[in-house]
Amino acid sequence: MEQLKAQAAGKIRNPNFENKIVSAEEAASWMEDGMTIGMSGFTLFGEPKVFPGALAARAHKDGIKVNIFTGASMGPDADGVLAENKAINLRLPYQGNPILRKEINGGEVKYIDQHLSHTAEQLRQGVLGEIDYAVIEAAAITEDGQIIPTGSVGNSPIFVDKAKHVIIELNVSAPAAYEGIHDVYVPKDQGENSREAIPVYDVSKRIGSVGIKVDPAKVRGIVLSDRPDIPSPLFEPNEETQKIADNLLEFLEKEVEEGRLTESLAPLQSGVGSVANAVLSGMKHSKFKDITVASEVLQDGIFDLIDAGVVKFAAATAFSLSAKRVATLAEDLERYKGKVIFRPQEITNHPEVIRRLGVISFNTALEADIYGNINSTHVNGTHMMNGIGGSGDFARNARITIFVTQSTAKNGDISAIVPFVTHVDHANHDVDVIVTEQGYADLRGKSPKEIAALVIENCMHPKFKAQARDYFDRACAKGGQTPHILSEAFSWHDHYAKHGTMVLGESKK
Amino acid sequence: MEQLKAQAAGKIRNPNFENKIVSAEEAASWMEDGMTIGMSGFTLFGEPKVFPGALAARAHKDGIKVNIFTGASMGPDADGVLAENKAINLRLPYQGNPILRKEINGGEVKYIDQHLSHTAEQLRQGVLGEIDYAVIEAAAITEDGQIIPTGSVGNSPIFVDKAKHVIIELNVSAPAAYEGIHDVYVPKDQGENSREAIPVYDVSKRIGSVGIKVDPAKVRGIVLSDRPDIPSPLFEPNEETQKIADNLLEFLEKEVEEGRLTESLAPLQSGVGSVANAVLSGMKHSKFKDITVASEVLQDGIFDLIDAGVVKFAAATAFSLSAKRVATLAEDLERYKGKVIFRPQEITNHPEVIRRLGVISFNTALEADIYGNINSTHVNGTHMMNGIGGSGDFARNARITIFVTQSTAKNGDISAIVPFVTHVDHANHDVDVIVTEQGYADLRGKSPKEIAALVIENCMHPKFKAQARDYFDRACAKGGQTPHILSEAFSWHDHYAKHGTMVLGESKK
Repeated sequence: MEQLKAQAAGKIRNPNFENKIVSAEEAASWMEDGMTIGMSGFTLFGEPKVFPGALAARAHKDGIKVNIFTGASMGPDADGVLAENKAINLRLPYQGNPILRKEINGGEVKYIDQHLSHTAEQLRQGVLGEIDYAVIEAAAITEDGQIIPTGSVGNSPIFVDKAKHVIIELNVSAPAAYEGIHDVYVPKDQGENSREAIPVYDVSKRIGSVGIKVDPAKVRGIVLSDRPDIPSPLFEPNEETQKIADNLLEFLEKEVEEGRLTESLAPLQSGVGSVANAVLSGMKHSKFKDITVASEVLQDGIFDLIDAGVVKFAAATAFSLSAKRVATLAEDLERYKGKVIFRPQEITNHPEVIRRLGVISFNTALEADIYGNINSTHVNGTHMMNGIGGSGDFARNARITIFVTQSTAKNGDISAIVPFVTHVDHANHDVDVIVTEQGYADLRGKSPKEIAALVIENCMHPKFKAQARDYFDRACAKGGQTPHILSEAFSWHDHYAKHGTMVLGESKK
Repeated sequence: MEQLKAQAAGKIRNPNFENKIVSAEEAASWMEDGMTIGMSGFTLFGEPKVFPGALAARAHKDGIKVNIFTGASMGPDADGVLAENKAINLRLPYQGNPILRKEINGGEVKYIDQHLSHTAEQLRQGVLGEIDYAVIEAAAITEDGQIIPTGSVGNSPIFVDKAKHVIIELNVSAPAAYEGIHDVYVPKDQGENSREAIPVYDVSKRIGSVGIKVDPAKVRGIVLSDRPDIPSPLFEPNEETQKIADNLLEFLEKEVEEGRLTESLAPLQSGVGSVANAVLSGMKHSKFKDITVASEVLQDGIFDLIDAGVVKFAAATAFSLSAKRVATLAEDLERYKGKVIFRPQEITNHPEVIRRLGVISFNTALEADIYGNINSTHVNGTHMMNGIGGSGDFARNARITIFVTQSTAKNGDISAIVPFVTHVDHANHDVDVIVTEQGYADLRGKSPKEIAALVIENCMHPKFKAQARDYFDRACAKGGQTPHILSEAFSWHDHYAKHGTMVLGESKK
C-alpha cells in the first residue's frame, strides 16, 4: 500500500484529491443493498480492477446485491467475480462474461440489453433511477481536477455527472501516455433550444476535454491499483473468417469500381472479433488508403493499418487488445498519439454523427434469415449471448450496414441462415449487405422475395440450400410481401433440438 | 384547358417557365418502360392529380411499367389508378392503397418498405438507380424559379435534385396561402467535412427556402390541374380509441407528476389514424399547454389545439385532413401561418433532429408481443398492410417511444398482444410504452420477464390473459433471458387460421 501511495502521489496532481485514498474494502463498505453503481469499462479496457473484488467479497459476506451499469463488457475480475458472489441484481447495457451470462439466462440476474448510445440519454431522462456511486478507473487526476480515463471512455462521463458520489480507482500502472488521447464531450439535455449539434464533422478534430471534469467534493474516495490492462483473446484469421473478409473486401472494391465510394471509402466502424480482425488484416494488402475509422472499439490491427497508410485516423470509445499488444501499449500510445482518439460511447455511437459521416458499418450476426432480418443476441431465440451493443446505433444510421457471419455453426449442423430468425435485433429495413464465407448478398434496392432468392443463393451453405428453396417456394405459393409458413418458421431449430442437426430428415442423435 | 391556362398565368411568375405547358397525355408519352418516377405526395396531400391518370392510360395502352417513388401514401387517383392499370413495377417507400396492396401481396408489384428518412440518403448514395422524372405538384412557381409545393414536402426536394427531368403539375385550385408555409432544407452529401448539422434547434425557426429550387432547363413540362386536395376519412373517437387515448394521457400526466416532463411535455410526434386523433382531441381538455409538435403528419385536430393554446407550433412534412377541413383549408392556411410549417421528410424524420429535440413519439402497432416487440407492417407475418413509414425513425431516437393498439381485433377473435409477433419492425430495445384500451405498460428500466408480466397484466384483453400466462410460465421453466417455446410461438395465429379465434380450445369454424 505504501509503495502504491508513493507511485500515486505524482498522478494525483490536484490538492483537493489528496487525503482521499482509501482501501478497496473501505470503499466497498459504503455500498448498500439495492444501490446502483456506474462503472467505467468497455470491452474489458478501463474497468476498475480492485474495487469489484472488494465489492464481491462484501456482497458474499453481507448478502447485498447492487445494480451494475457500465459502458459495455467487463472481465473476470469485475463481472466475473461479482457474478460468482451473487452481487448483481440488475446489469445493463451489455455484458460478455460466461458466469454472468449463465446467471442472466438462469433468471438470477436481471439484464437490460440496450443500444449503447441509449444509456446516457435514459440517465438524463431519469428513467433508470439514480446512480449512487460512479467507480471510474483513472490514469491520473490533473491539476484542474479532471479524471484522466484509461483504455476506454464509455459511459464514464455521464456516470460521474449523475452519480451522488464518485470513487476513483487510480491505476498506477496505467501508461502516462493515456493522457491526451481522450476527447470528452458531454451533450446537454435533450429539448428545444437546449442541446446543440454534436460537433463531430472531421473525426480527427477534438471537440472536448482531455479528461472527465468532477467536483472534488463528490469524490468520496480514491482506491489504488497497479493491475495492467486486461487483454482479450487474439483473433487470428482462419480459413473461414479469411473468406468472409475477402468477400466483404470484394464488395467494398465493387463499390469503388462503380463510383459510389473512393479508395478512402467512408468512415469505418467494425465490430469486435475474428471476422472484424480478418477484414482489417485483409485491408493491409488492399488498394484502400487514408481511411478514417469511426468505430466503437479499436482492436490490434489498427496500429498496423496506420503504419501501412491505410488508416489515417481512428476514433472509438475503447481498446480491445490482445496480450501481445497490451505489452507494448505504453510505447504505442506515445507513437500513435494524434492518430487515435477516444470519445464517450454516446458520441461514437450517436445517430447524428453516424448519419452525418455516412459510416460503413460491419458487425457480426448470430443468425440471419432469408429476408435479411438479423439476430445479434439470443441463442435459439431465448438465451442471451452478449447483447446488441452498438450494432443498432450503427445499423440504422450507417451509409452501408453490413452483417457478417459464418454460414454454419456447430460443425455445420446449424445453418446461420434460417427461414425466420428466432429473435430480431435488426429488421431488414436496416440491413444492406450480408456476408458469409460463401459470398455476399447486396440487399439494397431489392424487395423481400428478391432478397430471399439472393441470400439463399449467395450466402447459404450448399447443404442447406435445397431445403431453404423448398421452404421459400412453398411459402411463395401462399402469397404475401414476405412469404412464410408460420407453422414451419422455426422447424429447422426444432429439428436441431430433436436430432442434433438442422438438415431436415437427418439425425445425429 | 384555356381557362386553366388563364388561371395558371398568374401562378407561373418566372418567364423561363412560360411556354412549358403541356397536356398530361403529352407528359405521359415521355415515360418509357422501366423508368423511375419520383412523385410528390404524402398521406394523399400534395400528390399530382392528373399526370398519374394519363400515365396509367399510357401504361394500359402500351404495356409499360415504371418504378414509382414518393414521399409516402398516395390516393385512388394516383396509386389506385396506376395499380389498376398494371403500371407499377417497383414501389417505395410507403403505400396505403387497397388495390396496390393487393398487387404487392399477390407478387405483381415489387415493394420496398423503407424508413421514411432513408430514401433521400439512398438516392444520394446512388443505390436506387437514377430518377428519370420528378413529377411535383405545385401551388405556384416564384419569380426566382422556385416550385412552391402544396400540402406536403415529402421527398420532392431530393427528387427534383436527382431527376434528369422535372414535370411540374401546377394546381390552379391550390390555395395561394400555401406559399410561405414550407421550409425546404436539403442536406449536403454525407461524409467528413461535407454535411453540416441539420440546423433544427427551435422547431419554429425557419432553416430553408419557401420552395424547391429547380433549374428551369430541367423542367420539361408543366401540366395543369384544378383538382382540390384529397381528404382522408375523418377519424372520430369511439369508446375504445377514447380509452386508449385516456390511458396514454394518464401516462403523460404521470411523467409530469414525477418531474420528468413539464406541462409543455416535449416535442410531440403522433402517427396517423383514429387513436392519434383521439389523443389529440383528449389533449384539448388536459392541463398540457404550449406544446411544440414535431411530427410527420398534421391531422384535423391540430387547428383546434392551436386555438386552445395547447399547441404553440407545429412542424411536419404533410397534412392529412378530412373533407370538412379541406373545405376551409384556404382560410386556415392564412389563419395559422406562422404556427405551422412543412419540411422535407428527411428533416422531420431525421434521427439527428429527433434525438436532439427529445421527441415523444406515438405510433400504432398492428401487433405487439409480450416482450415488447412490435409488428407495424405485416398481417399474419406475411401480408403487407401499409409500411413502416416514419415509425422507426422516431421509435429509435425519441425520448419516449409509445406504441398504441386496441388489445383485440376482428371482434375480439384476435389478440393484438401475442407470445411472439409474426414480423418484427421494432425490437423491444426501441419500445418504451405500450398502450391499449386496457391500460398502459411502462417498459423502461425493466428486463424482459418483468416486461412480459406487465404487458400481460396491463395491456392484454382479459379473455387472453390466462393463456398468455400459461405460455409465459411454461416458457420460463425452460429458462433464458427471453423465455419462449418456439414450437408454440405462433400457435395462437395457427389456431386463428384453423378455428377463427385465437382463444385456444375454442372454435368459430
